[in-house]
Amino acid sequence: MSPAREPAAAAEAPAEADAHAEAGPRAGTAEADRPAVAFSAYDSETCSIARTLAVIGDRWTLLVLRDVANGIRRFDELTDHLGVARNVLTRRLAKLTEAGLVSRSAYRVEGARERQEYRLTPAGRELVPILLAFMGWGDRHLAGPDGPPSVATHHDCGAPVRVTVGCDAGHDLGDRPRVSLRPGPGSRRR
Amino acid sequence: MSPAREPAAAAEAPAEADAHAEAGPRAGTAEADRPAVAFSAYDSETCSIARTLAVIGDRWTLLVLRDVANGIRRFDELTDHLGVARNVLTRRLAKLTEAGLVSRSAYRVEGARERQEYRLTPAGRELVPILLAFMGWGDRHLAGPDGPPSVATHHDCGAPVRVTVGCDAGHDLGDRPRVSLRPGPGSRRR
Repeated sequence: MSPAREPAAAAEAPAEADAHAEAGPRAGTAEADRPAVAFSAYDSETCSIARTLAVIGDRWTLLVLRDVANGIRRFDELTDHLGVARNVLTRRLAKLTEAGLVSRSAYRVEGARERQEYRLTPAGRELVPILLAFMGWGDRHLAGPDGPPSVATHHDCGAPVRVTVGCDAGHDLGDRPRVSLRPGPGSRRR
Repeated sequence: MSPAREPAAAAEAPAEADAHAEAGPRAGTAEADRPAVAFSAYDSETCSIARTLAVIGDRWTLLVLRDVANGIRRFDELTDHLGVARNVLTRRLAKLTEAGLVSRSAYRVEGARERQEYRLTPAGRELVPILLAFMGWGDRHLAGPDGPPSVATHHDCGAPVRVTVGCDAGHDLGDRPRVSLRPGPGSRRR
């Protein structure tokens, strides 16, 4: 998202959302003291979602990250598991390495030449919540009668893990969070 | 992710992670009573991440969802804000509508023909945590000295919003969650 004060995902309250977009702040709401700025007035690319998507916003890249996060670290194992073309995997791994999300280290199987294996860097490990958010949505909407293909658990205690959206006032925003955006220090008007 | 018991994102503990992958469960850990199943033994596509990516796993689709979530609902407004080609936007909106993530409704500006506008459905609104996860990562890693382009706040109370990973035992797993996967009811061996 980018700077704006529109409620994200206000599909169930279209009249209200339109009022925000077209009529400015409404007196008597928490919004009233914030500036009325249409999301469309801000540059689409000056946005943390757009920037993150520019680095990891394609299917193969996210599947490679999923596999590397789950201990599939070697080129041939990745091509075998993912069914991805070798040239595609090479490009994705190069981009992830350049971006500092994956690191390479050498290994050697006896009798073979030295090869590389791939691990998430600390910045790459911070992508795990994104992967878990994808997983949670798929579990709820696409698992079908068989149920979820896998269960994510806390490595330290074994309890099931979930992604939640909360606010600094302590509210849990639930599965369909109602979120507003306001311009941050790095915002840019079009 | 898919069924496996590898710690996700165990980059900082490679020796430990390798022990999991190659030597099976270690006695005396929380892992020891769970089956040792390599992630690579399970079908890559029978996975809630892969399934979700098949629906929304490309940059334009996620940017369209971002914009629609933020009140940009009309075709011409979307092309103007995103700078996306009309045929690309048409395809993305058709796919999102078919998938039940976006709904269409008619509107008419005086003197013009009837047009469509787009809103998130309830299932589409459940994608907002994914968008917020992308945003949080970008804010931390790509915002630069200017700071975040925008601040997400709870629509009801105005407090800043964040995505967190927690477990059912009440632990906050932090920004680099250590997560294990185990096969769920819908798992499929290769």
